[in-house]
Amino acid sequence: MPSHHARLSKSSLKQLREEVLEANLELVRRGLVLYTFGNASGIDRDKALVVIKPSGVPYDKMKPGHLVVTDLDGRIIQGKLRPSSDLHTHLVLYKAFADVGGVVHTHSEYATAWAQALREIPCFGTTHADYFHGPVPVTESLPEHEIAGDYERNTGDAIVRRLRDRSAASIPGVLVANHGPFTWGPNARTAAHNAVVLEAIARMAFLTTTINAEANAIGKPLHDRHYLRKHGSAAYYGQTKEPK
Amino acid sequence: MPSHHARLSKSSLKQLREEVLEANLELVRRGLVLYTFGNASGIDRDKALVVIKPSGVPYDKMKPGHLVVTDLDGRIIQGKLRPSSDLHTHLVLYKAFADVGGVVHTHSEYATAWAQALREIPCFGTTHADYFHGPVPVTESLPEHEIAGDYERNTGDAIVRRLRDRSAASIPGVLVANHGPFTWGPNARTAAHNAVVLEAIARMAFLTTTINAEANAIGKPLHDRHYLRKHGSAAYYGQTKEPK
Amino acid sequence: MPSHHARLSKSSLKQLREEVLEANLELVRRGLVLYTFGNASGIDRDKALVVIKPSGVPYDKMKPGHLVVTDLDGRIIQGKLRPSSDLHTHLVLYKAFADVGGVVHTHSEYATAWAQALREIPCFGTTHADYFHGPVPVTESLPEHEIAGDYERNTGDAIVRRLRDRSAASIPGVLVANHGPFTWGPNARTAAHNAVVLEAIARMAFLTTTINAEANAIGKPLHDRHYLRKHGSAAYYGQTKEPK
Amino acid sequence: MPSHHARLSKSSLKQLREEVLEANLELVRRGLVLYTFGNASGIDRDKALVVIKPSGVPYDKMKPGHLVVTDLDGRIIQGKLRPSSDLHTHLVLYKAFADVGGVVHTHSEYATAWAQALREIPCFGTTHADYFHGPVPVTESLPEHEIAGDYERNTGDAIVRRLRDRSAASIPGVLVANHGPFTWGPNARTAAHNAVVLEAIARMAFLTTTINAEANAIGKPLHDRHYLRKHGSAAYYGQTKEPK
Repeated sequence: MPSHHARLSKSSLKQLREEVLEANLELVRRGLVLYTFGNASGIDRDKALVVIKPSGVPYDKMKPGHLVVTDLDGRIIQGKLRPSSDLHTHLVLYKAFADVGGVVHTHSEYATAWAQALREIPCFGTTHADYFHGPVPVTESLPEHEIAGDYERNTGDAIVRRLRDRSAASIPGVLVANHGPFTWGPNARTAAHNAVVLEAIARMAFLTTTINAEANAIGKPLHDRHYLRKHGSAAYYGQTKEPK
Repeated sequence: MPSHHARLSKSSLKQLREEVLEANLELVRRGLVLYTFGNASGIDRDKALVVIKPSGVPYDKMKPGHLVVTDLDGRIIQGKLRPSSDLHTHLVLYKAFADVGGVVHTHSEYATAWAQALREIPCFGTTHADYFHGPVPVTESLPEHEIAGDYERNTGDAIVRRLRDRSAASIPGVLVANHGPFTWGPNARTAAHNAVVLEAIARMAFLTTTINAEANAIGKPLHDRHYLRKHGSAAYYGQTKEPK
Repeated sequence: MPSHHARLSKSSLKQLREEVLEANLELVRRGLVLYTFGNASGIDRDKALVVIKPSGVPYDKMKPGHLVVTDLDGRIIQGKLRPSSDLHTHLVLYKAFADVGGVVHTHSEYATAWAQALREIPCFGTTHADYFHGPVPVTESLPEHEIAGDYERNTGDAIVRRLRDRSAASIPGVLVANHGPFTWGPNARTAAHNAVVLEAIARMAFLTTTINAEANAIGKPLHDRHYLRKHGSAAYYGQTKEPK
Repeated sequence: MPSHHARLSKSSLKQLREEVLEANLELVRRGLVLYTFGNASGIDRDKALVVIKPSGVPYDKMKPGHLVVTDLDGRIIQGKLRPSSDLHTHLVLYKAFADVGGVVHTHSEYATAWAQALREIPCFGTTHADYFHGPVPVTESLPEHEIAGDYERNTGDAIVRRLRDRSAASIPGVLVANHGPFTWGPNARTAAHNAVVLEAIARMAFLTTTINAEANAIGKPLHDRHYLRKHGSAAYYGQTKEPK
């Protein structure tokens, strides 16, 4: 029943558009983006289609229909607007990490400051350990020919290279050198949530290192305890079902 | 008249639920918590029952009925949701300090930064002296076996150990090393109020030490004067009765 | 016509109550006060009566009738509530400076941080020069017997001593050591305005000294030029009459 | 048809008044100005008339009719209020840069702090590179006779001198030493937008240099890539037409 299937497809893409729009708006509500900065996307793995924010459109005028649908090579499948100029960075991440369902990029101020300072964010406490199973890494700076070449794609590759020995689930974000954070998650909503939390972690790390320039990262036992009480197979944070 | 007594009990627990919910919401209004971070609880000393925030439930959907009632050993007496994962830290404090009626834990950013920097907050001025009769202490880091063991209970014990020579009334909060602040008071409302003030104190101390790395704590006479004008038997701050 | 005079008096005190309430609320709107911190007052020079905020009353419940009227010795003339515990500091300032019509005290965070750091705020730029004709001074710390004695009055005396060679008009505020700022002006509204501007000046000075620890105060020509274009006899900032 | 032409003229000036008012209000909405600080203006190049904010009028009472219209020598053509005291600085910029259609001056806190610290803002990352094709420069301090003389005009000349080897389009703003930022653009709206972005850049640069005092400016390839993807002839950021 292809017509039935087509309706279903339309319906699931419509839902994805709404989820991605909502993730973009969450960035605004939390103060992570200024004017048209930042972008969130989500992927429909079955159809191998990505829904992403259009480039340079004000958030307060953005409607689901403005979002752009592309395939994994960046060809526009639906939409009359240009996709975010960072589209190809998102696509590299979707191709590299099969468990990633949403990607977010912002220039949120504290995370961007660490990226500009070329310093990874040490895990100074349990807020960080609840989300990242290690420091928040910084990519290597791109060599000149990669900047001059396929810049956005090369940025994605630099993120993937930087994560190589870690899973995208345990390190849900990276700082792109001299640029800003990319975060991800199983869907666009969680990717945006992780962007918000990363900014809070970056802010507290800034304060910590200013109060005590010799502050040390926490030890592995405390880091593991917190990460695993939220994310391990024996997690005991949160609810197993939604409260009524 | 046991049925009358039961009604009264229900009624006072209902009121405690509302007070504890309100204390949790105060943390949101004052910007101390992000998403589902943080938790507030209150105790009914007569019934030896504690009302605490459920784990991982968004604040904007939280209703009095979502709060969890436990006994002092953490057994759930009422409620279908999991209690905050920090429940056992709260319980240790209620058992150790008979005059504590409410407990609050947050990851508020400036207080958490001092906790991450492993620096107690010196009393740099009268705002601090109005609330804390001494510096805001930091607990010792837990040894590995205490992290691996009954972690939340051991965190409570570390707070109690740190306060040993001081009363919980004169030092209404402590920074847990690499984690964040716990505050308390005669009820949940005051515990939340103290969490808000501690964050302001931590913020001003951050600024003070950044402006002048050699800044000193105030002397005992000024510290005593301010603490006692608000809290001593001859206090002359505030009203003896509510304004009409 | 004494009865007519009595009516006029009542009327002008009523207006003063409203002005002082409004000045207190301005501190809330601008984020200078937390909970019941801070206090504003105004004086009726003809009647030699001061209207001041009551102690410890929440701002959102404060009505003109809650304000307390005292004479210049602090005797309560009208009102059922205790006046602000800082009343006697205000009174000293009214007695010392005949051109002061309103006084404000806050624990606003950046100004308080400079007070806690025991550093006067250098005039780093024209925003400062537009309001203060010199650095923002810090009082000397009170000796122990002055703290133990008539503390609030002695605080006022320390402010007056610190200003001795300057006029209250050209230096509309002072930092009380380890405590916080007092500001003043021809009326309560301007005193509150000056408190808000002082906090902005303190914030920018904090940033300036953090960016460049060697930053210097501006020279006298620029300082004079800006102060005098707003305040001198040849001032050319603002309007000579209200816009319609 | 002179009467027709007069109507057109009136109409275009009316529109310019509204644009300039809107640019002034954008500064308020984005937290760049306090009380009556700051000012925005726009120019009608055909008529050689400038519309500028009046001096010292509260933003929340400002109406299009309060704005002042002057010629390029500062003679008031329309309006009953005094123009901003910084009028002559704006006029110098309009005369020096033919492609500038709007000018904004603020005392926004982070940009002002860099101006007070007498440090140009290095290009630490791509947010900066997206807007400024080089560091944000600081003017030289005015010598005493220029301060005593035609101060506002001399301030404009100092900005122009500082930009000499750069175009006003590629460096859309400058920090006036010990004073604050001036920004500009093809119209008042963009000048205000650039003021907002400059403040964000200044804030992130403050954080960057605090996290890492040795942080370096980005290299020319990355700087060019970002600046040119937004501004070059082959720009691919944003839309070529407005989304419906």
